[in-house]
Amino acid sequence: MAKRVTGPEIEKLIQLLAKVPGLGPRSARRAALHLIKKKEQLLGPLSSAMGEAYDKVKICSRCGNVDTVDPCTVCTDLHRDQTMLIVVEDVSDLWALERTGAMNTAYHVLGGTLSPLDGIGPDDLNIRGLIDRVNEGVIREIIIAVNATVEGQTTAHYITDQLSGIDVKITRLAHGVPVGGELDYLDEGTLTAALRARTVI
Amino acid sequence: MAKRVTGPEIEKLIQLLAKVPGLGPRSARRAALHLIKKKEQLLGPLSSAMGEAYDKVKICSRCGNVDTVDPCTVCTDLHRDQTMLIVVEDVSDLWALERTGAMNTAYHVLGGTLSPLDGIGPDDLNIRGLIDRVNEGVIREIIIAVNATVEGQTTAHYITDQLSGIDVKITRLAHGVPVGGELDYLDEGTLTAALRARTVI
Repeated sequence: MAKRVTGPEIEKLIQLLAKVPGLGPRSARRAALHLIKKKEQLLGPLSSAMGEAYDKVKICSRCGNVDTVDPCTVCTDLHRDQTMLIVVEDVSDLWALERTGAMNTAYHVLGGTLSPLDGIGPDDLNIRGLIDRVNEGVIREIIIAVNATVEGQTTAHYITDQLSGIDVKITRLAHGVPVGGELDYLDEGTLTAALRARTVI
Repeated sequence: MAKRVTGPEIEKLIQLLAKVPGLGPRSARRAALHLIKKKEQLLGPLSSAMGEAYDKVKICSRCGNVDTVDPCTVCTDLHRDQTMLIVVEDVSDLWALERTGAMNTAYHVLGGTLSPLDGIGPDDLNIRGLIDRVNEGVIREIIIAVNATVEGQTTAHYITDQLSGIDVKITRLAHGVPVGGELDYLDEGTLTAALRARTVI
């Protein structure tokens, strides 16, 4: 800004809001003004909710999920099938898969993917914890649900290698046409995979 | 979510973040996870900044700007030309005009536009305060910088009417082709205005 037009506390709030993913400098200003206009309904409650999250948030020492208890809600859910484990890159993937309601299993969050160029090796991911869990002998199937990227697939291969001596079924998500997707807009790799994995009607 | 996968405090944080303009339910989850991952660098400072804004924010009783002091930084800036007043709908417009650095004047925030369908009449806007300021006798020119919408123009006409007895010059922003804009994408109204207000090169 050419000149100061508001208080330093409000400028500080705008600067911090601009670092939230989904907001940029312009939308951070809009967001700050909206929060100020909705002071009682939004700014106050959000400030408290952030303070409470700051005080209470924990990373589950077993699966890597984000929660306010450790072990987390998912790990201590007795109604889940503990013989199946879905391995994901990130907590957001765990939450996305849970929203489908399709499975009722345990999870394991790696915390990223192998990426030698970024200096991320096996020790930077929660792979040791995964092998320990499998060695407990309860898990019968591991579904590796990593992103269909080069890094994701490299990580999947590495995990499969590490588990090669253990008697556990390892599966991965199917490739194919997204539901609602138009063939015209899909890449050749997806179409090839969908053709190869075609099913009888 | 089909089942609870995280703590109620974190779900509450996500719900509140989803009410911030620019974020929806999906990006609120992404934002919450990012805040939690950057707990010390972002979640803590943002929580404090919101708390401080909540405690200190004030609406300037003279011009309607948002600040932590009243009268605000703009109203008490002795280097501004107090004989010119820019009238805007919203605080965000004041900030946007200030970022241009083009003018160095006083401001007046109406707090919206006249909109009979939404039940917003003259008494719901800060028009009385504007007339009082003009009656002080210092202001020589009022630039009405409201949006080029029907409501904005209606409000501009109403203000001009209200000030008709007072010796003050009233101007409005020019219409024309936006800088960097392509004629092909502009509406007929803008092109007509740009043609009528053409200038000699």
